[in-house]
Amino acid sequence: MKKIINKPEDFVDEMLDGIVRAYGDRLKVAGEQGRVVLRSSGPKKGRVGIVTGGGSGHLPVFLGYVGSGLLDGCAVGNVFASPSSQTMFEMIKSCDGGKGVLCLYGNYGGDNLNFDMACEMADFEDIKTATVRVADDVASSPRETAEKRRGVAGMVYAFKIAGAAADEGRDLEGVAQAARKALASTRTMGVALSPCILPQVGKPTFSIKDDEIEIGMGIHGEPGIEVRPMMDADAVASLLLSKILADLPLASGDEVSVMVNGLGATPLEELLIVYRSLHISLSALGVSLVMPHVGEFATSMEMAGLSVTVIKLDAELKALLRAPASTPFYTNENK
Amino acid sequence: MKKIINKPEDFVDEMLDGIVRAYGDRLKVAGEQGRVVLRSSGPKKGRVGIVTGGGSGHLPVFLGYVGSGLLDGCAVGNVFASPSSQTMFEMIKSCDGGKGVLCLYGNYGGDNLNFDMACEMADFEDIKTATVRVADDVASSPRETAEKRRGVAGMVYAFKIAGAAADEGRDLEGVAQAARKALASTRTMGVALSPCILPQVGKPTFSIKDDEIEIGMGIHGEPGIEVRPMMDADAVASLLLSKILADLPLASGDEVSVMVNGLGATPLEELLIVYRSLHISLSALGVSLVMPHVGEFATSMEMAGLSVTVIKLDAELKALLRAPASTPFYTNENK
Repeated sequence: MKKIINKPEDFVDEMLDGIVRAYGDRLKVAGEQGRVVLRSSGPKKGRVGIVTGGGSGHLPVFLGYVGSGLLDGCAVGNVFASPSSQTMFEMIKSCDGGKGVLCLYGNYGGDNLNFDMACEMADFEDIKTATVRVADDVASSPRETAEKRRGVAGMVYAFKIAGAAADEGRDLEGVAQAARKALASTRTMGVALSPCILPQVGKPTFSIKDDEIEIGMGIHGEPGIEVRPMMDADAVASLLLSKILADLPLASGDEVSVMVNGLGATPLEELLIVYRSLHISLSALGVSLVMPHVGEFATSMEMAGLSVTVIKLDAELKALLRAPASTPFYTNENK
Repeated sequence: MKKIINKPEDFVDEMLDGIVRAYGDRLKVAGEQGRVVLRSSGPKKGRVGIVTGGGSGHLPVFLGYVGSGLLDGCAVGNVFASPSSQTMFEMIKSCDGGKGVLCLYGNYGGDNLNFDMACEMADFEDIKTATVRVADDVASSPRETAEKRRGVAGMVYAFKIAGAAADEGRDLEGVAQAARKALASTRTMGVALSPCILPQVGKPTFSIKDDEIEIGMGIHGEPGIEVRPMMDADAVASLLLSKILADLPLASGDEVSVMVNGLGATPLEELLIVYRSLHISLSALGVSLVMPHVGEFATSMEMAGLSVTVIKLDAELKALLRAPASTPFYTNENK
């Protein structure tokens, strides 16, 4: 197996141990199963807590966004598998600073079910929760059934904006509202060039032909909307942007932040070439681009490919996006 | 070809155009061939300039370290090819703030030759230069001929420390001395699991068998010291650390910063598992670890594999490493 790991069944726990060994001054691992990542400093009294959760294998998503100006906690599942409701509940409890907890996570069946149960458990202990599900992937369902869409890299913008809203002292509904507003203006779509290898399987669980590209594939290898012959960077950028703009119309004078997110194996040089192409197209429409996010923000282990996320900004969203945020895996200090 | 690019011959220029479009507030491209990357703000009057250069395909190396607290300029070559001496000379000229320019770059034949010529050209124009070559890769030559070693990820520590020394107002010899001191305490060694694809070739230029790992392979695919059957993460960490420690002895009470650098396709999870293993081994020796660098700092496009760099710190090096530094591709704000 071409992975630099030890026993596959230790993959997640050793990764978490590595994180604590590297970043123990800022992050800690808690929970009965050792699957809750929290800020070392704990929840801020009087600030709304924000938590997420999901399967492993997507770093920096999800736990990489636990830190100042962002999330308070993350429930960590096995590779591509939802964490348990018990783990989520322990996390919610740990992240309540007295003003309630926003659960902000990707729209996947297992996560939805477990978070719903965890919120019920929290309710029994009089911890207020609110839920916002990220469903930014335009490829995963048509506009008419947008609520069925999966959550992908766009969640990073939602984490950032909700975190800044909580830092401003907004209440639970206000923070949830900021997240919803961010997501209403955020769309993502991706392409995949190669599969990824699950540690416990040891070989690719699906395949993409050498001369083909899969449009709209999900970050767990969910089938995309079509398979096409391999195309060049400008064509990839143009295709993804057109699908996004069909869903999120932009006009001259609009301001956006664009994320070009590598899924794992795609070189940074290629992400920059795609950013260039998007910048040319959007500039031609009179749209201005601020705070570029070019790099790996939400991956699928060693999958080759990328996603493009566009968030349309107004003054409020822009200010929240600009507010300081820092974790060992993300900072906007240099964006 | 499974690369998201346009015409292969446009790869470098489109990448640079992407950088200017994304980060034009901080970086600019100059030079007759458009292959010099500079800080938008230009050289700081009265500060020693620091420059580097090398082939493309290694982002964030080299140009990703142009920015505050780090480098003033970078000469950009074609993929895996040295920039021209003319480009280097233009860069040196642009980066002289009146106190001379340190050329700090990897020890490769073409780069050595061209930087030497560029420094001669600078000398004709009465620009003082100093040269420090990075030769941190222990796999590339035995200790007795350490001057023949190649420069790899350890150069990032040298960039950082030299940049901080220049910010302190040290003179040219003082900044060169800081870089030399950093490098005397820095060793790197890597493993490769897969080749990478040059845009103009379109297929891998060498191969590694599915069940094998190449120990000590260079970042351009230079042959390593041996090919072994695939091994687990602890074995990789232990092997790399033992080769590094044979060359850079550490004792109880020593303090180091460790970089686990992904070469392109290796997931962040796996880098953290290797960091964990190194942390356990070094802690057992009584060595303490500060300022972890886990991520992609010096890549070979989509090559799978990683390198480990250890820098032994004293109070001076630690302070220089901690001093603020920020580019669009690197910040130590969250390290």
